[in-house]
Amino acid sequence: VYAFSLQLTKLAKIIVNTNNFMKSDFSVRILGRSSAIPTQHSFPSSQFITHYNTGFLVDCGEACQIQIRRNGISMNHIRHIFISHLHGDHYFGLFGLLSSMNLLGRKRALHIYAHPKLEHILRFIFVQNGDGIKFPLIFHALSHENKQLILETKRLNVYAFPLRHRIPTCGFLFLEKPKMRNIRPDAIEKYELNHLEIRRAKMGKDLFRDGEKLAENVELCYPQEACFSYAYCSDTSYDSKTAEYVKNVDLMYHEATFAKDMLHKEEAKYHSTAGEAARVASEANAKNLIIGHFSTRYQSIQPLLDEARAIFPNTVAAQENFLYDVSTGLKME
Amino acid sequence: VYAFSLQLTKLAKIIVNTNNFMKSDFSVRILGRSSAIPTQHSFPSSQFITHYNTGFLVDCGEACQIQIRRNGISMNHIRHIFISHLHGDHYFGLFGLLSSMNLLGRKRALHIYAHPKLEHILRFIFVQNGDGIKFPLIFHALSHENKQLILETKRLNVYAFPLRHRIPTCGFLFLEKPKMRNIRPDAIEKYELNHLEIRRAKMGKDLFRDGEKLAENVELCYPQEACFSYAYCSDTSYDSKTAEYVKNVDLMYHEATFAKDMLHKEEAKYHSTAGEAARVASEANAKNLIIGHFSTRYQSIQPLLDEARAIFPNTVAAQENFLYDVSTGLKME
Repeated sequence: VYAFSLQLTKLAKIIVNTNNFMKSDFSVRILGRSSAIPTQHSFPSSQFITHYNTGFLVDCGEACQIQIRRNGISMNHIRHIFISHLHGDHYFGLFGLLSSMNLLGRKRALHIYAHPKLEHILRFIFVQNGDGIKFPLIFHALSHENKQLILETKRLNVYAFPLRHRIPTCGFLFLEKPKMRNIRPDAIEKYELNHLEIRRAKMGKDLFRDGEKLAENVELCYPQEACFSYAYCSDTSYDSKTAEYVKNVDLMYHEATFAKDMLHKEEAKYHSTAGEAARVASEANAKNLIIGHFSTRYQSIQPLLDEARAIFPNTVAAQENFLYDVSTGLKME
Repeated sequence: VYAFSLQLTKLAKIIVNTNNFMKSDFSVRILGRSSAIPTQHSFPSSQFITHYNTGFLVDCGEACQIQIRRNGISMNHIRHIFISHLHGDHYFGLFGLLSSMNLLGRKRALHIYAHPKLEHILRFIFVQNGDGIKFPLIFHALSHENKQLILETKRLNVYAFPLRHRIPTCGFLFLEKPKMRNIRPDAIEKYELNHLEIRRAKMGKDLFRDGEKLAENVELCYPQEACFSYAYCSDTSYDSKTAEYVKNVDLMYHEATFAKDMLHKEEAKYHSTAGEAARVASEANAKNLIIGHFSTRYQSIQPLLDEARAIFPNTVAAQENFLYDVSTGLKME
């Protein structure tokens, strides 16, 4: 019943999608998919993740604020920014973004999760700029040593985990907390459930009265909704630990800067090939994979996509301004 | 004859322009025309000036390097960068641009003319970034006190002059040096001119032999070609001195952040209205005016253009990716 219900949910979402009315509670929008040197059509790394009403920015390459506007994202909606590492193509957009937030009169606190050096850099730039930052800017230093819980919201846990790159780098895992079950109205009537009994049932408990079990939870509640998860892995060379950190993830973004022709080249040392990205997805038992952070040397991404799909079929190539549903891996809109 | 010849030259250029074959030795390409907060369709301040084979970048707002690529400009062609002032929308693009130059293996020296603080900021950022800048980066500090010659090339003088803004700000004037006259072949034959006599004639001298004048210069040479000039004035409030600094300029770019409805508003204090920009062009006896640095409050630029044209008819509104000829003020391509 559980699996079947899930399939039904997915099917319903797919049907809705064909009508362009798909709505996701958990989605990823690609704002930039290029590697270090942007092209005329492509922006450096940045993604906007929405979970219910909370917006998270992951990395903030140059011109991120322009992409934010193009995609109709409210700057004020961004409450948490996660920066994977301090190479410019992953954070040079912060200067402009924070300036604009300042100019637009932001009052709301902004949390930044990054290497501790970033706080120093940002404060230095904005002191030079004359005015400083006028809204609360709260820095959270990443440790880069182990997987760590860095943020807990009502419905979501966010973890950072170390990647293997030339400088200290973190990936991020967004993992939904177990959801409360939905109570069956007929069960409320049948057993005349009181408030406490309903709450217990929603938490997965069976119904007991006077020490006697009156009903299994499955009689009281609809099947529990699945908890979905999204992992961001960039920049990194292949690392077998990555799969362990994000085991069974629903949707994984993994960098695929190069194709296999670059496998043992010096310049590819701290990056992954498309095949390596697929290998990590496969080892992690991920459901879907998005590859990105493509080198400008590839005029067409198709060979990278083919290379990844040979190992992990459920792979798509990141497209800027595309929105992906975390639960299905499907492109929305 | 001189004025008539000039008119003929302009006419020829206009005719060629209609065939899309116009070639200019002195041109300005608008890379960004928006004020502090970029929009989804508009980039912050940046312009690329070409004089014969030398490329100059004036201001470098965020994503300037993307605009450079879109417009097919070679990064290696940029030898001099002029930064008007240290508000982020005029220099935050330098971080990404210099990073890309680094990654692309630039060897050629790059000259930056700016407030002395900029050297400190850039060196700080690139030390944090790990590698530093691997090509020669030569800083030239602007004084912001008087009009000053800051660069002299074979054919061009570049001046900085103070503008009136919230922080120290400079405008830039690109002024062609007097050009050598072209010798008439029939004069060489008629007077059997030797090498030294030709050289003297090209410099505007009459022909003397044995203390006796044999020919006026006008007999020996074609009329001297005009020297053209371009002035960049952004950001600034109206300042009567600006017109003095750029007197008789051919093409002037002047900021017009606001329309006259904002004339006495506090937020417009350090910027100009379109009418004020036109007034400066008129007082400077400029031939043509480009207005830009438009506030995002204006969905349409037409009211600003109308306001400026009522005072100075030869006004156009800056369009991103458009190329303007300095001598005629005409849009090329």
